[in-house]
Amino acid sequence: MSVLTELVDALRGGEVEVVDLTAPLSERTPIIALPPERGQPWPFSREVISDYDAAGPTVYWNNIRLSEHTGTHFDAPVHWLSGKGSEDVSEVPPARLVGPAVVLDLSARVAAEPDFLLRREDVEAWQAEHGPLPDGGWLLYRTGWDAYKDDPERFLNGGHTPGVHPDCARWLAERTPLVGIGVETVGTDAGQAGEFDRPYPCHWFFHGAGKYGLTQLRNLALLPPTGAVLVAGPLPIVRGSGSPTRVLALVERRR
Amino acid sequence: MSVLTELVDALRGGEVEVVDLTAPLSERTPIIALPPERGQPWPFSREVISDYDAAGPTVYWNNIRLSEHTGTHFDAPVHWLSGKGSEDVSEVPPARLVGPAVVLDLSARVAAEPDFLLRREDVEAWQAEHGPLPDGGWLLYRTGWDAYKDDPERFLNGGHTPGVHPDCARWLAERTPLVGIGVETVGTDAGQAGEFDRPYPCHWFFHGAGKYGLTQLRNLALLPPTGAVLVAGPLPIVRGSGSPTRVLALVERRR
Ligand SMILES: [Mn+2]
Ligand SMILES: [Mn+2]
Repeated sequence: MSVLTELVDALRGGEVEVVDLTAPLSERTPIIALPPERGQPWPFSREVISDYDAAGPTVYWNNIRLSEHTGTHFDAPVHWLSGKGSEDVSEVPPARLVGPAVVLDLSARVAAEPDFLLRREDVEAWQAEHGPLPDGGWLLYRTGWDAYKDDPERFLNGGHTPGVHPDCARWLAERTPLVGIGVETVGTDAGQAGEFDRPYPCHWFFHGAGKYGLTQLRNLALLPPTGAVLVAGPLPIVRGSGSPTRVLALVERRR
Repeated sequence: MSVLTELVDALRGGEVEVVDLTAPLSERTPIIALPPERGQPWPFSREVISDYDAAGPTVYWNNIRLSEHTGTHFDAPVHWLSGKGSEDVSEVPPARLVGPAVVLDLSARVAAEPDFLLRREDVEAWQAEHGPLPDGGWLLYRTGWDAYKDDPERFLNGGHTPGVHPDCARWLAERTPLVGIGVETVGTDAGQAGEFDRPYPCHWFFHGAGKYGLTQLRNLALLPPTGAVLVAGPLPIVRGSGSPTRVLALVERRR
């Protein structure tokens, strides 16, 4: 039997489940807090086009405003100076949007230290137990931060949110076969990353290496450490730096 | 070996390919033409937040405006009066976003008649050759209309674009196990569907039956009649009537 026939059968039979890693998008979706002199992303907002009314008696629909980086979203290489001139979000090869995902759970450490930074030794400890990082795949960095999903202020936490140490970000981006990193926080970098020796190291090194970021993920606790398949669906915005995106994971249920 | 391990291996080996069914999103993306008294969807537009400049020296990104129904997009049941009170786009079960897809190619008939309407007998003729419509899957209606993708005026064709006959739309929605219908045109209904006895029958019957629509698809010619797996990625807009969406297909390559 072909692998896609097996996949469809497994989806129907419940042996493979679709887990939604995406935060709902609404006027309450948290936006990254930047210094006031910086350009600011729009929060999500909408204007009703018609609501089964005179403007469209059988139709309900809305116009929407947001940014390429509002809510759960995809960062393309051109988003950062280190990736200037490389792929925009419409140029990411579709094959790189479907791939294996591993989950590194540092939530216990983050609970004790909101500014926690992932280090290479943490990744190597994970590898000793679970094997190498996946070729063409995603590192999903579980911090427990999705627990604050319904409290935007706590979610942003005055800029104290976990991230990745610059040395580790460089190593992951340049020395591993990952296509990208996915996080639960508002951006791929730590809340304090603007103050690092190498500011915003996930952005700098991953995008400089032609790799990607995914943010504001949820439900990572429902994924196994290895074995899930992630599908990212950024809108192919021509010359876009990124896009709000649906992120789904296929997960095998052991019975 | 588990089905997801096999899938990852097949993606790496090229036995399964990811085909992008999505139209690029830009200021040139065609918008449905409606009577002037009706509410109008916004075309895609953007405002630069920063472009490696004073507003963000290392950052390029944009704010964006569009509608829930701009470009390749997903229609949720609540979009239409017949589905009022049922699922909004954020409420669509994730399992219904991944499923089998079949392609019905009527492009030869459409070439001779742009107002061509798909009829039940056409679907039954397809079934006689290829088997039943897929349970929990998509009917992708190939009309050849993506040939006009780079000419928005020709794409809209003064409201003369192919669609589905009301009797066939009702039968597909109410009597088959499909989750939805996908089309190459600006909307799921024919350009002249506002004048039908049952106006906009795809919208009325599919959404009334809790089913979905996908529009402005491309590359259907790259899919086999049966055997592809479609992944739709609408943004989970809370109370959204639909969403711009990435649509990807997994296709097995016979070697
Ligand atoms: Mn971003
Ligand atoms: Mn629509």
